Amino acid sequence: MRVSAARNDEGRDGETVHGSVYTRHARHVTLKDVAELAGVSVSTVSLVMNDKKDARIAVKTQERVHRAIHELQYRPNALAQNLVTGSSKFIGLVTDSIATTPFAGQIIHGAQDRAWKQGYVLLIVNTEGNESIERQAIRMFLEYKVHGILYSTWYHHEITLPESLKDMNTVLVNCYADDENLTSVVPDEFNGGRTAANMLLGQGHRRVAFVNTTVESPARAGRLAGYRHALSERGIEEDPSLIFAAEPTQEGGRTVAESICASGATGVCCHNDRVAMGLYDALRNRGISVPSDISVVGFDDQEVIAAHMLPPLSTVALPHYELGASGVDAVLSRPVNTGDHRILISCPAVYRASVAMQGNAR
Amino acid sequence: MRVSAARNDEGRDGETVHGSVYTRHARHVTLKDVAELAGVSVSTVSLVMNDKKDARIAVKTQERVHRAIHELQYRPNALAQNLVTGSSKFIGLVTDSIATTPFAGQIIHGAQDRAWKQGYVLLIVNTEGNESIERQAIRMFLEYKVHGILYSTWYHHEITLPESLKDMNTVLVNCYADDENLTSVVPDEFNGGRTAANMLLGQGHRRVAFVNTTVESPARAGRLAGYRHALSERGIEEDPSLIFAAEPTQEGGRTVAESICASGATGVCCHNDRVAMGLYDALRNRGISVPSDISVVGFDDQEVIAAHMLPPLSTVALPHYELGASGVDAVLSRPVNTGDHRILISCPAVYRASVAMQGNAR
Repeated sequence: MRVSAARNDEGRDGETVHGSVYTRHARHVTLKDVAELAGVSVSTVSLVMNDKKDARIAVKTQERVHRAIHELQYRPNALAQNLVTGSSKFIGLVTDSIATTPFAGQIIHGAQDRAWKQGYVLLIVNTEGNESIERQAIRMFLEYKVHGILYSTWYHHEITLPESLKDMNTVLVNCYADDENLTSVVPDEFNGGRTAANMLLGQGHRRVAFVNTTVESPARAGRLAGYRHALSERGIEEDPSLIFAAEPTQEGGRTVAESICASGATGVCCHNDRVAMGLYDALRNRGISVPSDISVVGFDDQEVIAAHMLPPLSTVALPHYELGASGVDAVLSRPVNTGDHRILISCPAVYRASVAMQGNAR
Repeated sequence: MRVSAARNDEGRDGETVHGSVYTRHARHVTLKDVAELAGVSVSTVSLVMNDKKDARIAVKTQERVHRAIHELQYRPNALAQNLVTGSSKFIGLVTDSIATTPFAGQIIHGAQDRAWKQGYVLLIVNTEGNESIERQAIRMFLEYKVHGILYSTWYHHEITLPESLKDMNTVLVNCYADDENLTSVVPDEFNGGRTAANMLLGQGHRRVAFVNTTVESPARAGRLAGYRHALSERGIEEDPSLIFAAEPTQEGGRTVAESICASGATGVCCHNDRVAMGLYDALRNRGISVPSDISVVGFDDQEVIAAHMLPPLSTVALPHYELGASGVDAVLSRPVNTGDHRILISCPAVYRASVAMQGNAR
């Protein structure tokens, strides 16, 4: 913490300044202190500090200002800097509930890391889907002159962009809108579904069940299309009796277990890790072993679950960290309108122990 | 978004202002516009807007300024406001990894909700334990004149406070330091352990096992003390052979299962829900039913796990939301030094289906 020992004429040293962060002996060196020591006006100091070439300030004056800055150990006030430059080092992140949704918190992690590396700080507002909070958040971001805004949702779906964001440097993360001018960064669901299917097909499985979610979403349509594509790539005809629908929870996985067992599938692609966890429970209660009796693949690579199941779950990762990081890249680079603003982030395979070669499956 | 239609003499309307959030037709009304319309100086407008009573500005002048503000639909610039008032509406949140740790994200949720209600915005920096990032974050918070700082960790433990935070309005959340001047908001581990034990003792169990963590922490010491206290409150002598230690993961729960079965316990308090999940797996593999053969209580009430296990897990909730909310309260109220700065947040019982009356247990 920078403390001025040079001057004490304002009587603030050692005092508690109410409503401020400085509780003991803080007194910041101000622009005025620098100006006085350098014998110039405050605005001259400001011009020198902001390196305004066209201001034509004598080199000697500039040197005097820099000396005073050094002598007083003056640290520019970020808020003042923002006022001068007309923009800030803030990026706003509006989320519906990702700050509080277990696995999607990695979107924040990725956005934060990337922003920080570029010298930006994230301002995060979690709206819990409340439109009034959302409006206030966006107004606040405007007031703080954010460089741009990431608008993110905890699961991948179409949204209606708030009116107030339409004129701004906005990037959608994990969601998209019917607006060709908007860049969205979303998971590549199609290739994710294809990857999941290939984790089983690649081990010799031919009867691969697919447990889809009952929730309408790009994940539901995209992953199924990817699964179908993987089958057709290997010349396997799709068997509609191997396609199931279930709630995307452990309960959903348990509900669908009996039908899967009856279908003669040797491997199952689950909509997510939670469905796989419920399926594990139900299979174990029936005395059916994973993977020796049936192979299981999840989706999400959800922390605290996937790696710790018995056996550890082979799955496909949702690239939340990358979604956040790429969202920041897009906000900072402001890509030119190319007519295609969907940036797809791939969903990689995570190999663990829940898939056996088909020779070992029943 | 506020757009000035009245003036276009700076040639910025309709342009893309590079590096700014305004990409289409934005031009903000400035303090200078207000001053010109009101026929006063910029500093007079500023004084009126900040309601400086001692500035003695004629009522008529004040009215003129307010009329101009209304006419131009001027919206105060938050950054400028902060400069004038010497403090900001920011609260800084430094976390090691709670933004990205599944369940502790609720700390952010609680802090955010509470801050927002008080008109404050959280600036969040996630350091992942990196001291360099931590130093930069704290410097940045200083530059942005945050009102105060929450320093939070993803699990409850003792920390060494960074030197630069010692002079600031800092509140520790989910952690504590050896400094009597610091307020910490932490979970009440002792009563949490007592609650867990009572969930079994209250159902007639007398042989209650306690699976502690191998990780040194207030949770380890506090919950065990609470368990012991609950036993002694009911006149039950402690049996050291019922105290186990395990890694605080599913793997830990599976490892300890055999010893628990051999101990003759009719109920088990697990260090956390993940241990309970592993124990479930191992018990099921042995043909032992929860809760008819043995009752199980978790800790954490971890989302996506506890409520969705088979059977749903009775547990004790870690009050992350309340920790965050109370942390903001403490930062805003700056409680007087009372000599005791530990604010304990209680851990409530969550009743589900993994505890049976002891008459039904083996």
